Formats: sequence, C-alpha cells, structure tokens
Amino acid sequence: MSLVPVADQLARVLAEASALPERSLPLAAALGARLSRDVTTATAVPPWDNSAMDGYAVRHEDVADASPEHPVRLRVVADLPAGSPDDPRIGPGEAVRIMTGATLPSDADTIVQLEHTDRDDPLAPLAADVTVLRAPRRGEHVRRAGEDRQVGDPAASAGTLVTGAVAAALSSVGAGTVWVHERPRVAVLATGSELVTPGTPLRRGQIPDSNSLLLRGLAEEAGADVVAVEHVPDDPGQLLRIVEDLRSRGDRAPHVLVLAGGVSQGAYEPVKQAFGAADSGVLFTKVAMQPGKPQAFGRLGSDGPLVFGLPGNPVSAWVSFHVFVRPALLAMSGARGDAVNPAPTQALVEIGWRTPGGRDQVLPARVWDLPDGPRLAPVAALGSKSHLAASLAGANGYALVPAGQQDRHGDGRVHPGDVVDVVRLGLELPPALDQR
Amino acid sequence: MSLVPVADQLARVLAEASALPERSLPLAAALGARLSRDVTTATAVPPWDNSAMDGYAVRHEDVADASPEHPVRLRVVADLPAGSPDDPRIGPGEAVRIMTGATLPSDADTIVQLEHTDRDDPLAPLAADVTVLRAPRRGEHVRRAGEDRQVGDPAASAGTLVTGAVAAALSSVGAGTVWVHERPRVAVLATGSELVTPGTPLRRGQIPDSNSLLLRGLAEEAGADVVAVEHVPDDPGQLLRIVEDLRSRGDRAPHVLVLAGGVSQGAYEPVKQAFGAADSGVLFTKVAMQPGKPQAFGRLGSDGPLVFGLPGNPVSAWVSFHVFVRPALLAMSGARGDAVNPAPTQALVEIGWRTPGGRDQVLPARVWDLPDGPRLAPVAALGSKSHLAASLAGANGYALVPAGQQDRHGDGRVHPGDVVDVVRLGLELPPALDQR
Repeated sequence: MSLVPVADQLARVLAEASALPERSLPLAAALGARLSRDVTTATAVPPWDNSAMDGYAVRHEDVADASPEHPVRLRVVADLPAGSPDDPRIGPGEAVRIMTGATLPSDADTIVQLEHTDRDDPLAPLAADVTVLRAPRRGEHVRRAGEDRQVGDPAASAGTLVTGAVAAALSSVGAGTVWVHERPRVAVLATGSELVTPGTPLRRGQIPDSNSLLLRGLAEEAGADVVAVEHVPDDPGQLLRIVEDLRSRGDRAPHVLVLAGGVSQGAYEPVKQAFGAADSGVLFTKVAMQPGKPQAFGRLGSDGPLVFGLPGNPVSAWVSFHVFVRPALLAMSGARGDAVNPAPTQALVEIGWRTPGGRDQVLPARVWDLPDGPRLAPVAALGSKSHLAASLAGANGYALVPAGQQDRHGDGRVHPGDVVDVVRLGLELPPALDQR
Repeated sequence: MSLVPVADQLARVLAEASALPERSLPLAAALGARLSRDVTTATAVPPWDNSAMDGYAVRHEDVADASPEHPVRLRVVADLPAGSPDDPRIGPGEAVRIMTGATLPSDADTIVQLEHTDRDDPLAPLAADVTVLRAPRRGEHVRRAGEDRQVGDPAASAGTLVTGAVAAALSSVGAGTVWVHERPRVAVLATGSELVTPGTPLRRGQIPDSNSLLLRGLAEEAGADVVAVEHVPDDPGQLLRIVEDLRSRGDRAPHVLVLAGGVSQGAYEPVKQAFGAADSGVLFTKVAMQPGKPQAFGRLGSDGPLVFGLPGNPVSAWVSFHVFVRPALLAMSGARGDAVNPAPTQALVEIGWRTPGGRDQVLPARVWDLPDGPRLAPVAALGSKSHLAASLAGANGYALVPAGQQDRHGDGRVHPGDVVDVVRLGLELPPALDQR
C-alpha cells in the first residue's frame, strides 16, 4: 500500500470538518467560542461627545482670551457626574462642572481642566462661580462621538475567537449577544488491555494509561468540550457498545471520537477490528509521516460523529493530534485561515537529530527565542524515537522536516545550525529540568 | 506627588502575591493548575523490556545465522498480546509470537519482525512453527526498561503548568496524583453609574459596561477562577457592602478583587472613597506608565483579599491588568521565572506612534512574523489614546517604550523601522478587518 501524503490526509479530514451550527449567546456566555458572523458597530464609540478630564464645560467664545493676567469668571449652573442624563443649558458667561466621561452639554464645545481654574480641588463642594486662568483651544479635552468607531464600521470578523478583549470590544460597539458556532464535543477512547489507571501499581505487562490525559488535555486546549473519557480493553465488541452509547446521547452526543491505539494490522487491534469493514465509514491508511504512519479517519453514518483512530504510542498520538485532529476541531469551532492550520515559521537547530527517510518527520520540540531569532531542539534526548511519552512535557512546538529535505548533509541527519520549519504552539516553555 | 516607577509598583505587587496553598489532586483534576513540588520518576519508562514490533521473541543465538538461503525454523510455544502478564519459557529452538508493546519474555533477547518470517500475516491463527528468513541484530526491536526515564530521574519541576502533555508525561512516570497550587479565585467589580449591561439601549450619558467582560476574560485566560462579576454604581457604601459579602463566602471567597474605575481624585470615585483611608490597606499611587497612571493596590486586613484598583477606561484597564494583575495571578498560581512576568522580545515597527514623554509607554499592539523577524503596529489607528475599547480586539501583544527611549528622533515619536521591546501574549492573531 503506497503512503498517503500528509497534505492529502489533512485535506480529507478538513473536507469533513465543517463549522458547527451557530447560536446566539450573551457576550459573557460566548467567551471561548468563535464568531459565526461579522459584527458591525451598532453604537458609535464613544456614544456621546464627552469630557476627557475633570473640569468645566464652557462655551469657547467666553474663555478664548483668558490668561493669568486676564482671568475670566463664569457662573457655575450645574454639576455633571459621569452617567448623568442631564443636559443643562449654558448661557453666555456660564459653565458646568463636569467629570471625566460625562456627556458634554449641548451648549458647550470645550472643556477647561480643573487645574486651569481657581477651583482645582475635585472634592470641594460645588461653588457658585469659577475663574478660568488659561484659554483652552476650541474643542479641548472633548472626546467626539464616533471618534473610535462609527455606526456600521466593521468591529470583528467571523472566525474571531471571543476572548475577554474581544468581548469588551464588541460590548463597546453595542453588541449584547453575538452569533457563535457551537464548540465541538469530543469523546476520548484510549484502547489497550495493557493500560491501567495512572498511579495504579503495575503488574507484569501493564503500563499507565497516558493517552486519555494527553488527548483530553489537547482537545480542551484546542477549545473543545470533552464530554467523555473512556478506557477500552482490546475487545472490538466492547468498543462498539461504548460508541453506540455515546451516539445515543442526543444533544450531548460527541461530534468527534478520538481513539488511540488499535489501528494497525494485528490480532489485537480493536479499532481496526471494529471499524475495518469497507462500509464502516472509517478508512485505515498509512500516511507518509513519522511518527504516526497508521491513521484511521472517517464519519460513522451520514450524520454521525467523526472518528479519528490515532496510533497508540503517546508521541505518535501527540503528533497525529496536532497534524490532523486539532485542525479539524478548530475548523468545526469556526476558525478560519491560519487559525485552523498554522503556517510554520523557522528556527535554527541547536541539537541535531536523525530523520526517517521517505516520510515527512514531525518532531516534538522545544523552541525558544534569542535576540537573533528562534532556536529549536528535540525534546527527546534519545532523538526521534516515537515512544517517549515522558518527553512530551517539554514540547512547546514541533519541527517539520519534509521527506525531500532530510538528506541535505548526506547522512540522513538534521545538523546543528540547520534552519527548519517549526510550528509554535503558544505554550509556556516549561521550566527546564536541567536548570535546577 | 512623584510618579512611582513601574518596576517598583510591580515589586510591591509581587511581594504580596505568594503562591497559594497546595493540595493533592488526581492528574485529570490537576489539568490547568501548576505543580507545587518537583515530580520524580516513580516507574521506569518503559516499565518493562518490550517489543517495538509485531513479530517473534527469540533467543538471538538461535537465529544469528538465519538468511533466505539458510532459514531457521523455530517452534512457536506461546502468543503474547500487549498487556499479557505471562512470561512463557523459551528453550533452544523455540519462539513466542509477540505484539507491539508486549513485555519481552525473560528468556528472549531479540525480536524478529513478522516481515522477516514466513508467518507475516498478523491476523493468521497461531501456527506451530515459524521460519526466520533474516538474522536480526542482538536486541533488535527491543525497547529496554528505563530507556526513556529511570526511577528517580526528574520528570517535571515545580511551577510547571499541567497541560495534557504534562499530565500524560507524569502518568507515564507513575504519578497518579500530584501536588498543585490552588488556582486564584477572582472577583471583578466594574464601577461607574454610567455603565449599563451590554446591548441595553443607551440613554444620554450611558455607555456599555465593557470592563466586566474584559477583566473576567483576562483573568480566566491567566488561569484564574472568576467567582463573581459585579457592576457597582458610584456609591462607596454599596461597594463596601459587596466587598464584605464576597469576603464572607468562606472557601469560595475571592483571593483577589479586581476593581475598575473610581480610582482618581474626584467627587464620584467610589474606589478611592471606599478605600482611600490611610489604614485601609490599599495604597493609591500614580505610576510612571501611560496609559494607567492611577493605580490602587493593597490587601484588606492581614489575610484578606488582594485589591487591585485599575483605571476605568478599558485600554488603561487592559494595560494595567497585563502589567500588574496578570503577574500576580500567575505567581499566586505557582508560576515561576519568566512565566510570571514574560521577558520582552523585539520587533520592528511597521506603523509609528506618538509617545507621552516622562512615563513608560505600554501600547496594545498587533505583532506578526515575517521571514526576517517579527513586525509590530499599534492596534489603535488613532495612536496611543487610551479610551479606544473597540481596538483591543486586535491586540495580541504590547509594545514597551521606556520613558528614556521615547525621543531618539527628536520628535517624541516612534518611527517605522525602529526596533522596540514587545511582549507577545500567545493569542491567535484575529482576522484583520481590512482584509475582507
């Protein structure tokens, strides 16, 4: 069987990973979801002409010639805190005390800041008059309505992740609710009779189940809602019963099943045995990627969940998740463009490694910035072996070495000083173990 | 009153922001928290010598001379799936069929992969014999116990954020539960009688409350648990009652109160009025930062919550949060080093801006990577004005321009082509509005 190029497998995945239905939510409930529609400005920002300073709202003509030598006394006719609905009239020779953010009275065109008057104590009771000691420019300290955004201006594009800052911005342009895509619901099924709950004493042949934690965490970090985590022994019948149970959960049924292990040809490969039939909807392929060659992907029925069958060793699962599952979850969440599948940047190799030849290599890596640019090293001291679960704690990105670029030195190795493509995951760099 | 340097204010904050108490949690429940203790390897990785391939476990001496011309026939005495507790004896001239991951029998030292035998169908029933067609190296396809980590090896350092990958790594070294710091509980109190719930029609003088959403989201993005969000009118008595109610909530009481607005000298400044007394525990300062000059910080009582009083305009609140509140939340969560207060990197300025002079400038910015290095532009088309809430949606970092570096061109401006310090927030770059 010839190997499927990584890009072809990803294209198959993304063709099935449409954005989920939209719904309208109050802004606070939309945090963490993605906009399904562009948002335009409904309320100008700021909505009213208002004062940028604590001071006095005046008619500019009254104070145009004010100076310490020729102070101008005005009669104070009102006091305006921020939020006041009042619009006091201001006649010639009159002023209104006004606080920062308060709406400018219709009759005023200029603010004189407190410090340029004889009433510069903001805590003093309102006086009957104020003396202006310096002439302001016309319009000084007035923030104009619509200065930042006018009604109809674009405010945010569909696909935008609703962070706190985005929600605040949308609030400021008049949005109370927004249309967002549903977040994908994910079930994680780790297969393998050898797996036991973490921390359990191991009898001969057993190993701790790390894939459940890995895939649950990665799915949540990709913005998904993990609704079930199950450990399944090497029994295809039991696997199928669990999947049927998950599919029967109505509006809590998962959109995506992420299975780990059991995808190879073998006597004890429950995913392959459960879904290997030609009409299952799931296709088992060998992808030109190292690690992560065996991959299963498809949809159960015409409107059932997507199924990802990832190889069982944790580093292969990690790589497969980042290359195939994460883009799907992001696309289903409504992400667009680079947010679905990040464009690689480049980094200088600090410690070299061996490449597999014939397959694109995806290598979990530690990436850090130096003044002259980013550096990269494999997280596994033992090179690119794929079973090093413990090394994943140190990865904040991965190197991409296409098959065609693996032998530039004639020894099948990437060398220190080489420049390679890297995808950075926006993860905090964990404290190095060897720095203690 | 002289201005307090930013570094001095931050040092005051961090002196109060000790890591919260630790507790022991199962790994799955620890996701998102930070380790309070170093973790060492309790179980070797891998825990057992095991097979890296589907194949036959053999005694190397039996097959050292095997070749297509001189095949070696062995008697098959057992079948070992992954997870089997069995340790079948293997005598001279015998072999055991073994699946990937299964523990190596004590009598075997080498794996012959299926493809190098005459029994290369992994789904075939177990046969009574197998013929080896190629000689393996001694130890071939055997993963040695402890090859990745040996018992006692360091696995993760205190301060590490428990991501999915970290949890998986800790599971693989034998951890079932881990000691983590509590996550800080935060209450957000947005003050201002002019503020109304987002989406509400505005009467004259009102504006939408964006700070509640902003600070709630930013606190959650910093890993905190937001336990209350309240909007408080300009009434110091009501503010104090809300704070007392929050403090009375026992083990759900917030560790941190983040207040926005009302920190200036003025007639309607409820935070200043509620906490301005010398014995309140809260100190009101003017920090040499633009925006965000007025700052209040302190602790209510000897064991009460930390209080941050941030300026009320959203961009000032955003800047103040990143410079002071976020480092405190991270330190309380147990983060260490650069994870508390990220070291800036550098970027080339694409669009210039005006600097304030005399104060360190913190400018919300859009940062993106080009092949020759990162670029930066202010998110507010109007420059560094501090009231542009709507612009925050586009910020994925901020520029830092110290007071002493603001006039290198003699015009008080940062110019295109200048190199400035930048803190990148690990946020996805939102789709640009002008690209549609």
